[in-house]
Amino acid sequence: MAHRILIIGAGKSTSYLLDYLLEKSESEKLKITIGDLDTTSIPERIQSHQNCSIITLDIFKDQERITAIQGADLVISMLPARFHIKIAEDCLTYKKHLVTASYISQELKKLNQKVKENGLVFMNEIGLDPGIDHMSAMQVIDRIRDQGGRILLFESFCGGLVAPEYDDNLWNYKFTWNPRNVVLAGQGGTAKFIQEGTYKYIPYHKLFRRTEFFEVEGFGKFEGYANRDSLNYREAYGLQDALTIYRGTMRRVGFSKAWNIFVQLGATDDTYTIENSEGMTYREFINLFLPYSPTDSVELKLRHYLKIDQDDSTWEKLIELNLFDDSKQIGIIDATPAQALQKILEDRWTLGEKEKDMIVMYHKFGYELHGEKKQIDSKLVVIGEDRVHTAMAKTVGLPVGIAALKILNKKITTPGVQIPITKEVYKPILKALENNGINFKEYEVPYLGYNPDSVAS
Amino acid sequence: MAHRILIIGAGKSTSYLLDYLLEKSESEKLKITIGDLDTTSIPERIQSHQNCSIITLDIFKDQERITAIQGADLVISMLPARFHIKIAEDCLTYKKHLVTASYISQELKKLNQKVKENGLVFMNEIGLDPGIDHMSAMQVIDRIRDQGGRILLFESFCGGLVAPEYDDNLWNYKFTWNPRNVVLAGQGGTAKFIQEGTYKYIPYHKLFRRTEFFEVEGFGKFEGYANRDSLNYREAYGLQDALTIYRGTMRRVGFSKAWNIFVQLGATDDTYTIENSEGMTYREFINLFLPYSPTDSVELKLRHYLKIDQDDSTWEKLIELNLFDDSKQIGIIDATPAQALQKILEDRWTLGEKEKDMIVMYHKFGYELHGEKKQIDSKLVVIGEDRVHTAMAKTVGLPVGIAALKILNKKITTPGVQIPITKEVYKPILKALENNGINFKEYEVPYLGYNPDSVAS
Repeated sequence: MAHRILIIGAGKSTSYLLDYLLEKSESEKLKITIGDLDTTSIPERIQSHQNCSIITLDIFKDQERITAIQGADLVISMLPARFHIKIAEDCLTYKKHLVTASYISQELKKLNQKVKENGLVFMNEIGLDPGIDHMSAMQVIDRIRDQGGRILLFESFCGGLVAPEYDDNLWNYKFTWNPRNVVLAGQGGTAKFIQEGTYKYIPYHKLFRRTEFFEVEGFGKFEGYANRDSLNYREAYGLQDALTIYRGTMRRVGFSKAWNIFVQLGATDDTYTIENSEGMTYREFINLFLPYSPTDSVELKLRHYLKIDQDDSTWEKLIELNLFDDSKQIGIIDATPAQALQKILEDRWTLGEKEKDMIVMYHKFGYELHGEKKQIDSKLVVIGEDRVHTAMAKTVGLPVGIAALKILNKKITTPGVQIPITKEVYKPILKALENNGINFKEYEVPYLGYNPDSVAS
Repeated sequence: MAHRILIIGAGKSTSYLLDYLLEKSESEKLKITIGDLDTTSIPERIQSHQNCSIITLDIFKDQERITAIQGADLVISMLPARFHIKIAEDCLTYKKHLVTASYISQELKKLNQKVKENGLVFMNEIGLDPGIDHMSAMQVIDRIRDQGGRILLFESFCGGLVAPEYDDNLWNYKFTWNPRNVVLAGQGGTAKFIQEGTYKYIPYHKLFRRTEFFEVEGFGKFEGYANRDSLNYREAYGLQDALTIYRGTMRRVGFSKAWNIFVQLGATDDTYTIENSEGMTYREFINLFLPYSPTDSVELKLRHYLKIDQDDSTWEKLIELNLFDDSKQIGIIDATPAQALQKILEDRWTLGEKEKDMIVMYHKFGYELHGEKKQIDSKLVVIGEDRVHTAMAKTVGLPVGIAALKILNKKITTPGVQIPITKEVYKPILKALENNGINFKEYEVPYLGYNPDSVAS
């Protein structure tokens, strides 16, 4: 009998997921239904596929949603995270498995007991980050433990960047995902982590000055800044006794120092709207955050205010963005500073038609084994194929698709609202990812515990 | 017939208010009822006064509250602002006037039409700031307008400080009001104002580096940082055409630069709790916000992190607070950084038994009259008498008491939910305040428009 999969939401991040499942649809006997509010942007090759049907689906229309879910064995929700709960409740009612790439919400977590009782698998956080990070980390952590080792240090960083071939601006950065999230990065609250047993807290306005550096063989240097939630998975990973737990976001070296200029100005703020933003020029926008002067230029005021030296190379990064241009306009009514800044950045940081993105992930595992301290660094680089088949879409979509098949094929059976941190889950999925070119490389390095030389303070 | 006044809330800030009304109770035929949840701390001289009765009042007990309000002609609420609405609704039902020193809430504003229809006066924002600031500013603004002048610039600053005689710490600051509000000052959102017709926005983490300086004859120099709400009263004051509107808080020069160290560290954050705060030493608390190092001291890390030079005098301010002490403990379970910092500050900044506080207010009015640009600076200093009869209690309590009498005596009659910005209100109250030693001094100074020399950028 065929396995019936309902995919809700067919945005551009689903390219790989759809291609993967359709490719497997013959051998795995899949009948795939794609439901979206707007189905016009779904490519012809998918629309016309014999194992695929497309439906217009408004999840706020109960009957439409319920009918679609009733017709499936497993539902994949690629909608924004806040919509999952509606779908999850129906999946529970009609006894369907569910897969999402999003963080588990508190509401979703509350369904766990009932999901278990019904023998259903609600797999979440199975994209890239969260997703591949969980699985690749737990694979090494479990291996070290199985050998009798004790984890002392765990650091994990991930970044979506532009592929080296197209890395041609001074920021070494282009938008490869939601630009708004990039502008707001770090604003969720104070970053919290532990280093050598000591709790550490970094407020937003210092986040981009507390970076750590990394080398990835063949790809050069990167930097990382702390995520808000480094300790969120301490228990899930079984790292209650680890001395250092640190999770973060990767950029090319120098990005954070320059980005900090926007943070210091207040130009990333999304909590209020600017007066008269529509006709405002880029130069006037920057001047909003600088002291008034009847004589000094915006440039001099900015250099003085943020103490930017004449020969500081961050300055060239600002020039490249046309930040001091007095003709280009924001063009958005009632823009927040963050929205205005996004507009300025999109002028320069949009990935071109033919350009490729790149995903980088870096884990460090420090541990003690038979009285000896050791360290494994594990690194992943994925380059996109084109602007539709991006590395981001691949690393988010493939694990989702693979998980769906493993659940339908009863390779993954333990029921409950879960994330992919058990061997039953991560082993077959990581294996399948490897077969699709998503490979971590491991390096044994000297254990440094915490290395003060590698952190800017 | 006697005027019956119900005062709800008899905290320490009401000392002057009670004394003032009791003193007037014979000549003005007042019968005063003081209602509070806990009446034990009300001084004997008040308890035994023949025109005063004390009742235990829990405003959440409807019958108690209603009975008390029914027995009065006018109610003064000195409770925290969030409780006023309950009392205001009863005042409307039973047709009683109301006086509060708090900002008008949106809920309260909605009662305006009905309050008007019933001919009632609900006077709010009639303490110091808000209160005396409104009245003293509008008196000068109206005078300039009556002469045919046009306001170009309005700046207004106010601060609660320690009297010069007892100003004996390096911060030139002691707590004379709610310490928690001092620690959280500026965190309500981005400061917004206009300077020479240009909107300006200052984020919290830059607020204490964008100060303006003042000289008050006989009292030396002060500095001011921007309030969040500089434009809130633009319409109420009729300043829609003014080029510069700036409101702020006054401190002694040097306070803000040193306070900024706490802001930069993240030590004023009140949005999360610290792990293991109770047994944590002051030194460990500061180290939470600094990078880990196996070798460097907390002192060196802090100097490096915030680029504090060896000879920077702010450092001595930190030493004075015992910030690097490794024996003094926070002693609060699950403290937020702000709560922990408050504890550290209270060790050193508590006003002594015999010490006096000081209120400073500074307005600048720039205007054009007959083609000429002019400026008036108006300044107020009030020194407290002792730790009970503080300048703060006097400047908050007296205008409240005076307003109550003027309403009862029908000198203030225009009904509605209002603030004291009309001549009918501010004239008699400012006159009565003068008779009680609250006097502004005015200085004609050259109009500078915005003076770049007086602002640190």
